[in-house]
Amino acid sequence: MASPDRMALRRVAVIGTGLIGASVALAARRAGAVVAGWDRDPEVLATAGTGGGLTPAASLDEAVEHADLVVVATPIGAVSASVVAALASAPSAIVTDAASVKTPVIDRVRATAPTADVSRFVPGHPMGGSERSGPEHASASVVDGIVWVLTPTPETDPGDTERLRVWVEGIGARPVVMAPDRHDRLVAVVSHLPQVASTTLMGTAADLEAGEADALLLAAGGFRDLTRLAASQPGLWSEILVANREQVAAAIDLFIRRLDALRDLIAAGDAAAVDSTFDAAKRARLGLSAKPTVRAGVAVWQVEIPDEPGALARITAVLGEGGVNIEDLQIVHSPEGGRGTVHLTVAADTAGSAADVLSGGGYDPIRLA
Amino acid sequence: MASPDRMALRRVAVIGTGLIGASVALAARRAGAVVAGWDRDPEVLATAGTGGGLTPAASLDEAVEHADLVVVATPIGAVSASVVAALASAPSAIVTDAASVKTPVIDRVRATAPTADVSRFVPGHPMGGSERSGPEHASASVVDGIVWVLTPTPETDPGDTERLRVWVEGIGARPVVMAPDRHDRLVAVVSHLPQVASTTLMGTAADLEAGEADALLLAAGGFRDLTRLAASQPGLWSEILVANREQVAAAIDLFIRRLDALRDLIAAGDAAAVDSTFDAAKRARLGLSAKPTVRAGVAVWQVEIPDEPGALARITAVLGEGGVNIEDLQIVHSPEGGRGTVHLTVAADTAGSAADVLSGGGYDPIRLA
Repeated sequence: MASPDRMALRRVAVIGTGLIGASVALAARRAGAVVAGWDRDPEVLATAGTGGGLTPAASLDEAVEHADLVVVATPIGAVSASVVAALASAPSAIVTDAASVKTPVIDRVRATAPTADVSRFVPGHPMGGSERSGPEHASASVVDGIVWVLTPTPETDPGDTERLRVWVEGIGARPVVMAPDRHDRLVAVVSHLPQVASTTLMGTAADLEAGEADALLLAAGGFRDLTRLAASQPGLWSEILVANREQVAAAIDLFIRRLDALRDLIAAGDAAAVDSTFDAAKRARLGLSAKPTVRAGVAVWQVEIPDEPGALARITAVLGEGGVNIEDLQIVHSPEGGRGTVHLTVAADTAGSAADVLSGGGYDPIRLA
Repeated sequence: MASPDRMALRRVAVIGTGLIGASVALAARRAGAVVAGWDRDPEVLATAGTGGGLTPAASLDEAVEHADLVVVATPIGAVSASVVAALASAPSAIVTDAASVKTPVIDRVRATAPTADVSRFVPGHPMGGSERSGPEHASASVVDGIVWVLTPTPETDPGDTERLRVWVEGIGARPVVMAPDRHDRLVAVVSHLPQVASTTLMGTAADLEAGEADALLLAAGGFRDLTRLAASQPGLWSEILVANREQVAAAIDLFIRRLDALRDLIAAGDAAAVDSTFDAAKRARLGLSAKPTVRAGVAVWQVEIPDEPGALARITAVLGEGGVNIEDLQIVHSPEGGRGTVHLTVAADTAGSAADVLSGGGYDPIRLA
């Protein structure tokens, strides 16, 4: 019954043509699709059209008219209404979305759209590029290799989930299928909780600074690491946290429970128990590599470099010329000195050659992990 | 009464010749001092002697015999006993230490040593170099520009504090005088609490991963930033946290109180209040620069680079050749792709030239802050 185009999802509509929508359009076109797009902001739509990924439409209805697949990539507050409209206007298309919290979007769609329509809704979350915004920064490469979660509803046709999974892979991303509540629970811990912890740590220290001038004079590298996220976009984050409020509150509760337990061990002076808590976390962290591709293990080297223009260029050139890929690099400045300290993470199987290359370049690497 | 040498603290003894002790010896010798040293580990002492900073002595008594200044840089558990011994054996010397928690050391010294001796004890905390260990990595540069806190006791002679302050400055560090309990309270928030938060976040996520395979697949850059500290040395940290247990417990309590408040705002769906909490933290974080020297303000640029050997070399070379100093650099890998994203922090007054230099080098910088 379905045409080959419908099977391959060759005719695509993108609703919401900001960074993610326009990038998905470019990646889809790269893979051979024909893409129409619509955005309620005419300038955003025009910019996305100029970028070459999609043909601007005059309305949502016009954009989805011939679509096999509709991708809704609007801000989270507008997602469910656009999904419902697309399901109604394109009665044979698969409809997916890009919201970073799944359950509330799904609940609203299920409450509003006819059940027969919901069977074609395959909710999704392409996990990439959130710090940039606007179609002017769109690129097919934004989609390359990212984890793209698909979270079918109870009514979703498994065949549609599978077709979308194949399509996501075909445009260069890495599809992962899981239940919506599992997605929301996992991102609450590994994405939303770090943001909450960072912001709260910064707030705790800022209170201190407000009462005492120069309290942050003693704040060094570790503090900076943990509070870097606190400089993120407030509006974006409040929307996400409130959308995922139950799972985020549960994640904060888990975090507080563990903090409380560690606090009591410290207050009781139980050094052995504190030690074993830290040891378990260290082992877990060392198992978490910079990228899934090097999850087999990483090595971390500490190296001192002068704090001056060109110092990073020299050390990274030495490693690049030696063929060593840097998985992660962190600058740890001394509070105020003429030196910097760098932590270099490399895949474990290149640890030895990294050390040789660094030593050969006149550096004195210390292995931290 | 006092000789010019005594006034200038030219004859120095270092007790505990690991990384910090041996580095202080090298910095003192560079500034013209004569340095004797002792360590209970003969190998550590011999290595420090070979390093050229100090002349090994046969005992603590012999090391301090002619000293104007004794610096105790042993592990924290051994500090107070060494301070008391040095005060007794060198009856006219100023004695200082390098322990990272001050109150318990001071309490033990005051409980053990005669009050007349305690007047010559000027407790200190040179804040640098904690990740390296061993005299083989010692260097005078370890001391250059670091914040070196001095925390006089109620009995400490103010003249001795001032002499030590001048001496610390003379060997290249940045002396800051404050009360011991203030030091311990500040480091509890800006140094010990970040360690606790990082370890606890990693523990929370590890629990999740234990129950569900690949839960950490969704963990991206923010999670990695916040858990990097969790890979620190467990033994070192349990000793410090237990030594500062009251202040650390109080800091954790403050942190939990703020977490609880934010949790309740999120659970109540109060997006405006969540927003203003995040906004306040963002402003505080942007005021905290990579180094006190650039506290006037920083700018953060996001740039995409290919994830391959040499990519960092190219971008850092471009900036170095353009005369732009990188205050901080963070690699934000996509979960599994061929690209990396880098966040570059520069002093605010070089933000424009950084952008010009990056654009001229073929990069497409996005300003984040």
